[in-house]
Amino acid sequence: MSTPLVLVHGGAGDVPEASRAAHAEGCRLAALAGGKILSTGGSVIDAVTAAVAVLEDNPAYNAGVGCALTRSGRVSLDTAIMCGKTRDAAGLAALDAFPNPVKIARKMLHAPEVLLVGQPASEWAERNGFNRVPEDELTTEAARLQWHRVVDQGESPNFAGGTVGAVARDADGNLAAATSTGGTMGKQSGRVGDSPLIGAGTYADEVCAVSATGVGEAFMRSVFAARLSDAVRFGKEPGEALQVMLERVRDFFDGVGGAILITPDSDPHAFWTTVGMSHGWWTPDENGKGI
Amino acid sequence: MSTPLVLVHGGAGDVPEASRAAHAEGCRLAALAGGKILSTGGSVIDAVTAAVAVLEDNPAYNAGVGCALTRSGRVSLDTAIMCGKTRDAAGLAALDAFPNPVKIARKMLHAPEVLLVGQPASEWAERNGFNRVPEDELTTEAARLQWHRVVDQGESPNFAGGTVGAVARDADGNLAAATSTGGTMGKQSGRVGDSPLIGAGTYADEVCAVSATGVGEAFMRSVFAARLSDAVRFGKEPGEALQVMLERVRDFFDGVGGAILITPDSDPHAFWTTVGMSHGWWTPDENGKGI
Repeated sequence: MSTPLVLVHGGAGDVPEASRAAHAEGCRLAALAGGKILSTGGSVIDAVTAAVAVLEDNPAYNAGVGCALTRSGRVSLDTAIMCGKTRDAAGLAALDAFPNPVKIARKMLHAPEVLLVGQPASEWAERNGFNRVPEDELTTEAARLQWHRVVDQGESPNFAGGTVGAVARDADGNLAAATSTGGTMGKQSGRVGDSPLIGAGTYADEVCAVSATGVGEAFMRSVFAARLSDAVRFGKEPGEALQVMLERVRDFFDGVGGAILITPDSDPHAFWTTVGMSHGWWTPDENGKGI
Repeated sequence: MSTPLVLVHGGAGDVPEASRAAHAEGCRLAALAGGKILSTGGSVIDAVTAAVAVLEDNPAYNAGVGCALTRSGRVSLDTAIMCGKTRDAAGLAALDAFPNPVKIARKMLHAPEVLLVGQPASEWAERNGFNRVPEDELTTEAARLQWHRVVDQGESPNFAGGTVGAVARDADGNLAAATSTGGTMGKQSGRVGDSPLIGAGTYADEVCAVSATGVGEAFMRSVFAARLSDAVRFGKEPGEALQVMLERVRDFFDGVGGAILITPDSDPHAFWTTVGMSHGWWTPDENGKGI
């Protein structure tokens, strides 16, 4: 028997002091939402979907409401979900303004495709019961201000940008992972990061479940999440493997970031090479913690 | 010192008896084109680009001229390239009709993005000196006939479809890989397969270089190419690792296919779980072989 667990992150980066409590509380509430699914007999897939949806709805993070914008000021969302036991997986990239991309990926687990991109991805979502909303509904004042600073004033984008993700484990040790993001503030239109790519920013198998956040290109080139799973599979201690891989991504691939990781019997692991990474977890004994 | 080598494939599948000689000869010529680059002091990146471009120009394969079509009869191309030494990588997906997608990926190695998709990917290509052509210029009579059989008559698509790829090694043991495809015949618009995804259908590091072909979704869910590299890294013999991984993709992920693999000091390795896979190679001692 495993201890059921939901572990979430709200993105690696440098959250301003004044916002840290809200970020931590958002993570606690998201983990709690996932925990409610598990404690009422729901699956790990439904648990990560619920947890990520709560983070998407929270304007503090770069996913759903509050998402980053492209160079031309548009919404372009990336998400993926994966079941560790079956390895069923689904991702959508360069998606139009939908409030909860992770729910579309959850639905797409039943489709033969593993990745849909661009306009046809949004059309697939609409045919499957999801409604586009005006981009303004997902665009916060804070996101618009940051967009101006990045695009008009040449400020470096907050690389990590508050991508959100969740991993979950049930009493049988089944694992799942999901990630959702608006990508890098001021990104090239059509640019896709690691979040919607299975094995890069999102991955689950029978060894571990992983969701990453950070400089997407570095995580893609290192095939971060799948290779982290392999390191654990071939004998590394999970927490150590997570730290070593993130330091490698920083030092060789020139990209900082963070990730969360669980195995069928591990504690919740979170590590980051940025100033911080808001995260939270739920277990049956703890009614949600946020950091 | 390593023996310079170019190894190419023209897709796993069931090539009709009458076409096999042409498929083999096309692979020989592509390997030879890559070999010419290496033997005149060019890089492994330029060698795989040249080899894949020759296969894209050949109407026998599902890439460039002769590419598969979406369910609505449109061209939608996927490609990626990766340098093993620097891990620089670039991919484009759901690209419009460009004759040589691999050359666009080669150019994109200089861009900060690792993956561009959809209409903005085509716009990026145009801004960088590549010209769209009418879709008819890439659509062969054979592709159109197969499209009718799949879409109008419900025939199973030739899953493997003649995706093309190349891996190369120079005398210093540097490696590179590239892949190009039209995807699955009759695919959902916006569907992206494993070819343009780093670590799925295309991958190179200091351990090996890999290009895959087959049921893309199975290769994506298994994160085929990166996990194959890890198996070699952690001690498996390359040819055995390739066979075991492809059998695992077939048996657990329900997807047949094939792949080519080289390491800094290995023979050329090719394996497939389909009826066949046309492939070819060049070394300084052999002026191109095609099978």
